[in-house]
Amino acid sequence: MVYLIDKPGQVLTEIISMKLLEDKIIKDGKTIGTEIVKVDTFLNHQLDIELFDRMGEEIKRIFEADKPTKILTVESSGIAIAASAARAFGYLPVVFAKKTQPNTMTEECYSAEARSFTKGTTSVLRVSKHLLGPEDRVLIIDDFLAAGEAGCALCDILDQAGAKTVGFCAAIEKKHQDGAKRLRERGIKVCDLAVIDHIKDGRIVFADE
Amino acid sequence: MVYLIDKPGQVLTEIISMKLLEDKIIKDGKTIGTEIVKVDTFLNHQLDIELFDRMGEEIKRIFEADKPTKILTVESSGIAIAASAARAFGYLPVVFAKKTQPNTMTEECYSAEARSFTKGTTSVLRVSKHLLGPEDRVLIIDDFLAAGEAGCALCDILDQAGAKTVGFCAAIEKKHQDGAKRLRERGIKVCDLAVIDHIKDGRIVFADE
Repeated sequence: MVYLIDKPGQVLTEIISMKLLEDKIIKDGKTIGTEIVKVDTFLNHQLDIELFDRMGEEIKRIFEADKPTKILTVESSGIAIAASAARAFGYLPVVFAKKTQPNTMTEECYSAEARSFTKGTTSVLRVSKHLLGPEDRVLIIDDFLAAGEAGCALCDILDQAGAKTVGFCAAIEKKHQDGAKRLRERGIKVCDLAVIDHIKDGRIVFADE
Repeated sequence: MVYLIDKPGQVLTEIISMKLLEDKIIKDGKTIGTEIVKVDTFLNHQLDIELFDRMGEEIKRIFEADKPTKILTVESSGIAIAASAARAFGYLPVVFAKKTQPNTMTEECYSAEARSFTKGTTSVLRVSKHLLGPEDRVLIIDDFLAAGEAGCALCDILDQAGAKTVGFCAAIEKKHQDGAKRLRERGIKVCDLAVIDHIKDGRIVFADE
């Protein structure tokens, strides 16, 4: 079951709910306190590729009208989700931003800083300049949207490239951390697949409940 | 075109050649000196998911008889290739070893050290213990096989878990760096999709030429 709440004139605030993913989060996710949802058995350590393919199809449905020509994500947990979405769109190229600079990355880069909520560190995200340009219409995909640090950094990189950011999609949004709000204030269309409103007494409450 | 050279009694040394991937490496790869092949437009920065799906089908053909039940890779560039292979096998679970420890990774880990040829650093690769066990028959997938540091570390992790390592497959093997030899000496079946013998005057010479 999938449903959209469209408010006229407010397409940037539509709420998406992918029931299949919500059910999986309830079944296999574990909460730590009121802030952390551990989904390492299917989303960001062990990966359920069949679920990702269903998510990819849903992402295509949501962003098809925005006509993306490329997908941008960030290593590591966004990559397989981005790959499934790329396939659903008929094989779009996927670019992932790097958090470290290998010695094969010899050319000029676009770069932006992002703090990590779960790692307690700040990373510089980098994309080689030859992989993004003004001709690209880019959909950003990630596993989580929390404070929006990575999302905003990826938008900064696309701005540097002169590329068009056509949307942002995370598998799981933690609504109370305001990342979606930050991105929408930049004019970005944000549609996440499962939106967690809050965690109470170990129970995950989704925004559409 | 795909062909196998099977030497009787020497299945561990078979040479695989995936012509489609070799052609892509020749067309879009760039050499730096005699050691580095830069494939960032399709393999490890921008990703060609259609090519990965073809690679996934080829990996299934090579390792089907070994009956893997799980795929293990390491962040980041192995993930999308592993995802394509997982799909080809009818959706096997993919686990990727992490190079940093997020604060959500609270439980016990298997771990092993690996030097990185391209980054000039040593990483500790970690997999949460609850994701691997003696019941698993695991195929290891990575983007590159050079000195075999990551491959051996992943084998060490599987040994710690008591899991069976049924094989190793890299998209690109750099034969002269002896990683395949190291893995085969541990009794691992190694079949890489494109095997580079050496680079001479900027030209890539494959092992099957």
